[in-house]
Amino acid sequence: MRGLTADLQRFTRKATRKAPSKATLTERYSTIRRYSEYVCEPLATEDYVVQPSADVSPPKWHLAHTTWFFEEFILARYYKNYTRFHPQYSFLFNSYYESVGTHVLRADRGNLSRPTVEEIFQYRGYVDEHMHWLLRDFPAEALPILEIGFNHEQQHQELLYTDIKFILGHNPLFPAYRKEIKETPHNETDHDFISISDGRYTIGHRGSGFSYDNERAAHTVLLKAFSIRKSLVTNGEYMQFMQAGGYQRPEYWLSDGWAWVKEEHITSPMYWHFTDGTWCRYALSGLERVNPEEPVTHVSFYEAAAFATWKGMRLPTEEEWEAAAPQLPWGLRWEHTNSAYLPYPGYEKPDGALGEYNEKFMINTMVLRGASAVTPENHSRKTYRNFFYPHLRWQFNGIRLCKK
Amino acid sequence: MRGLTADLQRFTRKATRKAPSKATLTERYSTIRRYSEYVCEPLATEDYVVQPSADVSPPKWHLAHTTWFFEEFILARYYKNYTRFHPQYSFLFNSYYESVGTHVLRADRGNLSRPTVEEIFQYRGYVDEHMHWLLRDFPAEALPILEIGFNHEQQHQELLYTDIKFILGHNPLFPAYRKEIKETPHNETDHDFISISDGRYTIGHRGSGFSYDNERAAHTVLLKAFSIRKSLVTNGEYMQFMQAGGYQRPEYWLSDGWAWVKEEHITSPMYWHFTDGTWCRYALSGLERVNPEEPVTHVSFYEAAAFATWKGMRLPTEEEWEAAAPQLPWGLRWEHTNSAYLPYPGYEKPDGALGEYNEKFMINTMVLRGASAVTPENHSRKTYRNFFYPHLRWQFNGIRLCKK
Amino acid sequence: MRGLTADLQRFTRKATRKAPSKATLTERYSTIRRYSEYVCEPLATEDYVVQPSADVSPPKWHLAHTTWFFEEFILARYYKNYTRFHPQYSFLFNSYYESVGTHVLRADRGNLSRPTVEEIFQYRGYVDEHMHWLLRDFPAEALPILEIGFNHEQQHQELLYTDIKFILGHNPLFPAYRKEIKETPHNETDHDFISISDGRYTIGHRGSGFSYDNERAAHTVLLKAFSIRKSLVTNGEYMQFMQAGGYQRPEYWLSDGWAWVKEEHITSPMYWHFTDGTWCRYALSGLERVNPEEPVTHVSFYEAAAFATWKGMRLPTEEEWEAAAPQLPWGLRWEHTNSAYLPYPGYEKPDGALGEYNEKFMINTMVLRGASAVTPENHSRKTYRNFFYPHLRWQFNGIRLCKK
Amino acid sequence: MRGLTADLQRFTRKATRKAPSKATLTERYSTIRRYSEYVCEPLATEDYVVQPSADVSPPKWHLAHTTWFFEEFILARYYKNYTRFHPQYSFLFNSYYESVGTHVLRADRGNLSRPTVEEIFQYRGYVDEHMHWLLRDFPAEALPILEIGFNHEQQHQELLYTDIKFILGHNPLFPAYRKEIKETPHNETDHDFISISDGRYTIGHRGSGFSYDNERAAHTVLLKAFSIRKSLVTNGEYMQFMQAGGYQRPEYWLSDGWAWVKEEHITSPMYWHFTDGTWCRYALSGLERVNPEEPVTHVSFYEAAAFATWKGMRLPTEEEWEAAAPQLPWGLRWEHTNSAYLPYPGYEKPDGALGEYNEKFMINTMVLRGASAVTPENHSRKTYRNFFYPHLRWQFNGIRLCKK
Repeated sequence: MRGLTADLQRFTRKATRKAPSKATLTERYSTIRRYSEYVCEPLATEDYVVQPSADVSPPKWHLAHTTWFFEEFILARYYKNYTRFHPQYSFLFNSYYESVGTHVLRADRGNLSRPTVEEIFQYRGYVDEHMHWLLRDFPAEALPILEIGFNHEQQHQELLYTDIKFILGHNPLFPAYRKEIKETPHNETDHDFISISDGRYTIGHRGSGFSYDNERAAHTVLLKAFSIRKSLVTNGEYMQFMQAGGYQRPEYWLSDGWAWVKEEHITSPMYWHFTDGTWCRYALSGLERVNPEEPVTHVSFYEAAAFATWKGMRLPTEEEWEAAAPQLPWGLRWEHTNSAYLPYPGYEKPDGALGEYNEKFMINTMVLRGASAVTPENHSRKTYRNFFYPHLRWQFNGIRLCKK
Repeated sequence: MRGLTADLQRFTRKATRKAPSKATLTERYSTIRRYSEYVCEPLATEDYVVQPSADVSPPKWHLAHTTWFFEEFILARYYKNYTRFHPQYSFLFNSYYESVGTHVLRADRGNLSRPTVEEIFQYRGYVDEHMHWLLRDFPAEALPILEIGFNHEQQHQELLYTDIKFILGHNPLFPAYRKEIKETPHNETDHDFISISDGRYTIGHRGSGFSYDNERAAHTVLLKAFSIRKSLVTNGEYMQFMQAGGYQRPEYWLSDGWAWVKEEHITSPMYWHFTDGTWCRYALSGLERVNPEEPVTHVSFYEAAAFATWKGMRLPTEEEWEAAAPQLPWGLRWEHTNSAYLPYPGYEKPDGALGEYNEKFMINTMVLRGASAVTPENHSRKTYRNFFYPHLRWQFNGIRLCKK
Repeated sequence: MRGLTADLQRFTRKATRKAPSKATLTERYSTIRRYSEYVCEPLATEDYVVQPSADVSPPKWHLAHTTWFFEEFILARYYKNYTRFHPQYSFLFNSYYESVGTHVLRADRGNLSRPTVEEIFQYRGYVDEHMHWLLRDFPAEALPILEIGFNHEQQHQELLYTDIKFILGHNPLFPAYRKEIKETPHNETDHDFISISDGRYTIGHRGSGFSYDNERAAHTVLLKAFSIRKSLVTNGEYMQFMQAGGYQRPEYWLSDGWAWVKEEHITSPMYWHFTDGTWCRYALSGLERVNPEEPVTHVSFYEAAAFATWKGMRLPTEEEWEAAAPQLPWGLRWEHTNSAYLPYPGYEKPDGALGEYNEKFMINTMVLRGASAVTPENHSRKTYRNFFYPHLRWQFNGIRLCKK
Repeated sequence: MRGLTADLQRFTRKATRKAPSKATLTERYSTIRRYSEYVCEPLATEDYVVQPSADVSPPKWHLAHTTWFFEEFILARYYKNYTRFHPQYSFLFNSYYESVGTHVLRADRGNLSRPTVEEIFQYRGYVDEHMHWLLRDFPAEALPILEIGFNHEQQHQELLYTDIKFILGHNPLFPAYRKEIKETPHNETDHDFISISDGRYTIGHRGSGFSYDNERAAHTVLLKAFSIRKSLVTNGEYMQFMQAGGYQRPEYWLSDGWAWVKEEHITSPMYWHFTDGTWCRYALSGLERVNPEEPVTHVSFYEAAAFATWKGMRLPTEEEWEAAAPQLPWGLRWEHTNSAYLPYPGYEKPDGALGEYNEKFMINTMVLRGASAVTPENHSRKTYRNFFYPHLRWQFNGIRLCKK
């Protein structure tokens, strides 16, 4: 994780950065799998279970669901005479379970006290053991799925961070996750704008490295000249917006954004609390004063767009962002773009069971680019397309300004 | 608990039945307190945390809330220089917390992973230790509150059973709570009706034993003659109602009851599942076939009233029930009555902090009489008035028929 | 209507008061039917159509539904070869239509622009014409249903007043209904309490006059002594409650009442507006200053109960109210009682189609006694049991205090 | 309206087609204003009032709101000493009224019986009269706003058609609007695909004619080659999708689309009813059998996308649509595109009060291109961007397929 202190970073680096190029598949498998467990290390058993929002999953669910992926798509198909760990886990840890037998259970994930955390670690152990046997002589045809399995688990590692933050940060006791963790381990303080000239730019993923289907096909677009800021919008700038009545004045807001502000009584970024005359915020390291120099985070697309309008600027499109990316520092926050998440020209849905992985979400969401401080080290690239509904804030997202 | 096997009953008997008369206060305190923990013994840590319905509280909340009662109403007032275990627990484990500091947290109980179960047991230990010191020379003026504290904890012991059943019974793995526990440890199979003659009957609590404010003042009522059935309605009889289209025919239902059936898609008692051509039900001992001889349970007032209408009979009023009680076996299920929960003539609200204990719920709920198999042994009497909203089913309730 | 000025009262008196004793059935039928139309006279066509709340019905629906009652229960059964006015009206103007043919329409009454008002008046004319023929030689067996038809239409006349007030009073232009109408045509200003001694009282309807099934069987109850106030609670008194923080302090409220206050942001009786430093209220005669001498109206049961608690008093039960009725002036407001609407001992559901008329509502509602200024003149008696959900306010209801 | 028969078309043609080029401003103003009233001619007074869905406005509201536009943005600014018709109409007929005085009214538009239809026609007359005086010597600076006023009223003319259809089509009596009106006055039956070659295409509005801000700036895009079908998807083809289990199989649906299908129980296009073994649909001319040759209409974006997926094809983007438009017949249905409604490169928000006209809706909606049979004749162009939420169906929309 980018936000870890030196010591933790060493673990991460070993776990991920070097892995894809040099490590054997087995090492890579182990390192990725162990990192998920490392993320959960500071948790109490109780923290694994709850689900304080429908957008959040219980950590134990993440641990089981990523395991189920390897069991379902690899072991059940390629491991001869494989016996599943438990007959109902496929139902429980599939992303979209709705019914059991002939009757429907309205069991939200956060209502399931069983299987216990210990049982889920046993499940992980069982699957890992079988995977290790299989990895000794791994079938070539399954390599693409294995690669998806690695990336899938990394995605859930980031979700573990955001969901754990939500669980602890919405507890009235505000327990710290890890006192030494930094959400802004480095910072860009140059607020200048970079000029990007008009012209043809290639957008999307090329080459042989891993990418998701939604990053393809690579294609050429024409862009007009624009400027984009080197640094992200800071907490200090955002507080100016708040002081200028940003949350009270509909003229800055998209129509649906204003409805959201009124209905949800939004008056500040998520995790901010005004206590004794000071703005504090819950961070993974605990409750602390808002630092005006750090990039603002946990703001929705609606807030990002309203802030940009108030500034007389705008958010970049995802194509502009990608064109500018080589000249920008990034990796601290997922950066809101003014692009809807839709298929690229020439997009092709993958065959088979994994076909629904991305396409079906291509509606009603907006693209975020970059990566955040809790994105696993080698799980980011400039063509990566993240996407969330425009009101969501629990990810480590931020605002990059653009003009003209 | 009435439903326990012989061995468990011995524990219970020691814990409660003898207590009021002979045991010292300290023994009684210990026994009641230990029984709450005994009820939770079979739970995994995860089971203490979840809240699958707004009507259910996490077991750890019950354990803490009953402890808070003694801390708030006894130790904080009568123990010299008492230091609270934790400054925020009063806010967390009060029944009606809504805000922390100056900001509101929408933290449902089931979203709170902290304090941990272990911390709550430490809290119990801390309060118990101080209570034991205080009980050595307990202030006479606090005795009535102590008595309420005992009864309050016993009420929550019953809620622990019903809430644990809900938590485990809504889990797709249907884990048993205790395999040896019986929800119908004894049964009345005589379906005859007893005649109660018309006349004057005294209703409500008299004498010096403990009672809640809602059982007073004792008063005389005039009743017309009626008949009431010795046995409760059985699962077998209820299945006949279902087969006769009971859930499809509005003419049997109260207007709000029919709306509830349609909106919630109700087709059977709670915990029933139709699997492979057979009706099964989840019991504290696990998933099992419905036994047609046992009393039906987990039916709402609406279902009880519809069943009685279908039978051409009716539910008793609470006054009729109390008049007949000496001639009835009872204690297996909370029995629905056709009486709204309202104050008796001459009702007086207690002074002080405990004044709101009962009166404010005297609206929109219906009275249930008797006791259930999970009611603590000496926590029942014929004047006891239980009350729930007419759609609720998670209590161990049942149907007693009445006619003319 | 009690609140009408002299001129209007003459109409009413002719229409209703004398009718039951002397008029022929035909005269009585005509007078009652014409009075419904008289109530609607001041309406614009548009006012007949809208339904600003689920508790309110469009006036044209009331006019058609009462007509449908005579068509369905009398003409269709007793008029030889009767042809219905329109094949779908039975579906449209039945109280509980849910589906048309094989598909479900979510058509709320207020969404139905057709049939037009003119068509509904044609429907009334058609049914009236056939009824007049039938009334010349009316079948004796249908007389009880005819009587219900009369009373049913009178009930809807009162609902026409309350629903019209809601429609016009929730329009930002606040149009007057009739400028000359008085909601408090007379007033009781004696605030003394009357003592009612303890003893046996007969409750419920006896004798040969018309009554609803819910007023029977007459039965004897034992009451303890109590006092009850001659006058209703005034606007002035209610404003004191508001100034004392009545709507901000949970200790006065029933639990569900407090939840209702918070969720609905209730801060005053319905139809009150604080404008330019003064409390105004919308009356049938238009927007006007609140008169502190008049009885408060449009308060829910929750508000009535909270006011009584604040005063250190209580609301009467319906039995107490009925016992005191001969000594009380009443007829200005429907008076909240602290009794749930439940069957009397010996209650018998009528046979046949009208059987569901009352019984199925005997849950979740509270009894109101008396009559209001807009109750048709001879549609009130001391045994009359009105009933509404405890949060409803659009009826002309008020508060009578009781103590001990 | 495109769907009118010859006689009606003559009116329309006079009203709109010739207007922009030759008519004086006064003639154009009159013709457009009279056309709104012509659209409402078949309505009963009651039809003007209701609002059976939040997406629909009562016809009288459209008539008043378009009038308010001229009063607010032209008369109040440019007519010397203008006196508004009514002091509260500005509040009532502004699109976004939320409060009156100091208190909030939850008055949905469909709850407002006043002002009456007659009063609104008087309002129109009053504003028209003043506009006619002003148009004799119209201030040049107000011409752009006048042009917007014309286009604004034309937009509402189309909404009048769609909203009237909703009002009458959701009435169980299914009254016809105009028996002679045709929703498909002409039809394209050639199902061939046209090939569009790859290359640079200019998108957006150029030249001096009227356009909305959202059609600008014109800009160049690179498109890959694709094929697009000449004809729209027919009812017959759509019925094949239904028969193939289209509404039961999640694999064809976007994630949010599938959730919508399940939650809203969608099984066919809007206005379709399966009666006596046949699919019928409500059209402006009344209830009639579905004609398999006509283009399917009243399908949401979700349905359009699912149909295309089932066909193994896709919807065009708005840029593809615009590039192909010169070779396509169009104007029967608003055609769903797979483009989100977002600003074009170089988009500039207009100054002043009209600035919020378009931009604030640029989120969560999808673009529709073309025009429908009820679009006013000269209110369509190939750069026109219509937009609706992806679940909405009450517009006359349809499906055009695209491949590769």
